[in-house]
Amino acid sequence: MHITVFFAFLASLLLAVEAQRFVRFISTDKREYYGDAILPSGTKDAAKSTRARVIRGDILGDFTITREVKAIKKLLAPLPNERVRTVRCVGLNYVAHINETGQVIPQWPILFFKPWTALNTPSDPIPVTEGYQTQGNFTSKMDYETELVIVIKKKAFNISDEEALDHVLGYTVGHDVSHRGWQIDRGGLPQPQFSMGKGADGWAPWGPAIVSTSIIPDPQVLNIWTKVNGVTQQNSSTANMIFGVKHLVSFFSMGTTLLPGDVIFTGTPSGVNLGKVDPVWLTDGDVVEVGLENVGTCTNTIKYT
Amino acid sequence: MHITVFFAFLASLLLAVEAQRFVRFISTDKREYYGDAILPSGTKDAAKSTRARVIRGDILGDFTITREVKAIKKLLAPLPNERVRTVRCVGLNYVAHINETGQVIPQWPILFFKPWTALNTPSDPIPVTEGYQTQGNFTSKMDYETELVIVIKKKAFNISDEEALDHVLGYTVGHDVSHRGWQIDRGGLPQPQFSMGKGADGWAPWGPAIVSTSIIPDPQVLNIWTKVNGVTQQNSSTANMIFGVKHLVSFFSMGTTLLPGDVIFTGTPSGVNLGKVDPVWLTDGDVVEVGLENVGTCTNTIKYT
Repeated sequence: MHITVFFAFLASLLLAVEAQRFVRFISTDKREYYGDAILPSGTKDAAKSTRARVIRGDILGDFTITREVKAIKKLLAPLPNERVRTVRCVGLNYVAHINETGQVIPQWPILFFKPWTALNTPSDPIPVTEGYQTQGNFTSKMDYETELVIVIKKKAFNISDEEALDHVLGYTVGHDVSHRGWQIDRGGLPQPQFSMGKGADGWAPWGPAIVSTSIIPDPQVLNIWTKVNGVTQQNSSTANMIFGVKHLVSFFSMGTTLLPGDVIFTGTPSGVNLGKVDPVWLTDGDVVEVGLENVGTCTNTIKYT
Repeated sequence: MHITVFFAFLASLLLAVEAQRFVRFISTDKREYYGDAILPSGTKDAAKSTRARVIRGDILGDFTITREVKAIKKLLAPLPNERVRTVRCVGLNYVAHINETGQVIPQWPILFFKPWTALNTPSDPIPVTEGYQTQGNFTSKMDYETELVIVIKKKAFNISDEEALDHVLGYTVGHDVSHRGWQIDRGGLPQPQFSMGKGADGWAPWGPAIVSTSIIPDPQVLNIWTKVNGVTQQNSSTANMIFGVKHLVSFFSMGTTLLPGDVIFTGTPSGVNLGKVDPVWLTDGDVVEVGLENVGTCTNTIKYT
């Protein structure tokens, strides 16, 4: 092997070890790539990245981070919908949020699901069709919920808290778009139900990058926030989660196989409209930024269709 | 075209038109096939079929029912897990069941999901791992719920009740295995939640066949039953559903794309253990048969693992 080839090989190995911020993107050549986002100086928001090192292979399996750099034209969701097997969500996982919604602190994690068709990119509109818009005496009550999202990289079944992080690829931020009209007012029950009003197409933006557990060894120390039209509405820390990442992964693996590509939305902090005396429900044209420290932001516009 | 070839072609077209009971099976040659089950005389339970006409192609798209007949060695779930995109389930959809569980009649359908890893064949064991078994003062409370299952054949988005059946491939029977310990006692909330305690691996047997809408033009007239160790425990009719098949498909398509292969478990009638003064919770070795008229049965054994 020629010595320059050898050093290129060595460099590629070193780069692979440093795998950091997994993105999926359309480049200026109009083709789709997986990549390791290169952050511009002064920011840790992967949504601001304009370039990425191309990744060859499967980020849920064997892959190589190459030295080939591509321009990012548009960031997509970090995985295509068909690679995300199941979207689990946790209800009521921050004490201040539980208090604002008049609920009680659960002794065990509250689980619900979104269909994978709810997944959306970090930048595309959040469509709101007629059935979710205000009609007569039915008020829409669209609300935001910003959440840390766990991405599973290898099968987990009946694992312990201590083993949990071995099964995690990394973390990203997600928006659990929530329609209190269908979740609660028309929930169908005296008490709210979780699935209705949260599962419409595009109601789970996520991204901009899956940040590896090597960059974020402790997911319970991250600032998490929401801005609506530029104004901060949620501002907390993942330190306030009742059930942390390790326990959620282990708990949900009870008798249940978590698959590579499964994602877990881990619940939202306080500050949602539902908890406010004078809520300002989201409506057509509102811009919602959901953010997580060391990960980045998704910025999506509510769009009546 | 030679005249015998022409008639063979014509016969294959006629057979295709008569597509009836879609099964997936392992044959005596150890290979897997899709087929149209041939019912033995005197029964309409596809689980009793020993032969099927082989189907070539995709039962969710274009396919041909051939004249090739194969022996059925083992019936599998009608679709492999990866073809079932989303498992929707309906809570509280039969009045007598709502009454027995002390709930109120919902004004709108109650939605929850199972992960696709819950799907099981019509005959394999239902595994119960340690976390779901009785431990100390935590009682397992395993329960059966037999349900009509809708299988979607083509995309549905914001469709009307009248359009719904155009998007349905057919019906089968499913077992919504339900653990009242994790669903209610440890639901994590003062009120029950639906997802926990219903989603473990193998907790949704379904099959034995997807019976086409041409065989079952009206899904609201079918007897539905459960036997535990041979004794009838549920015995009702789909006529008693609060929200029928057409409305469920249309309702769940509100702003939400239902995909080919999606299944909808439509709720269970009365007779479950949860509603009994002296419940006999399912335990290791119990054999549960769930049945639907004109479709057939799934018979699965509870297996502590």
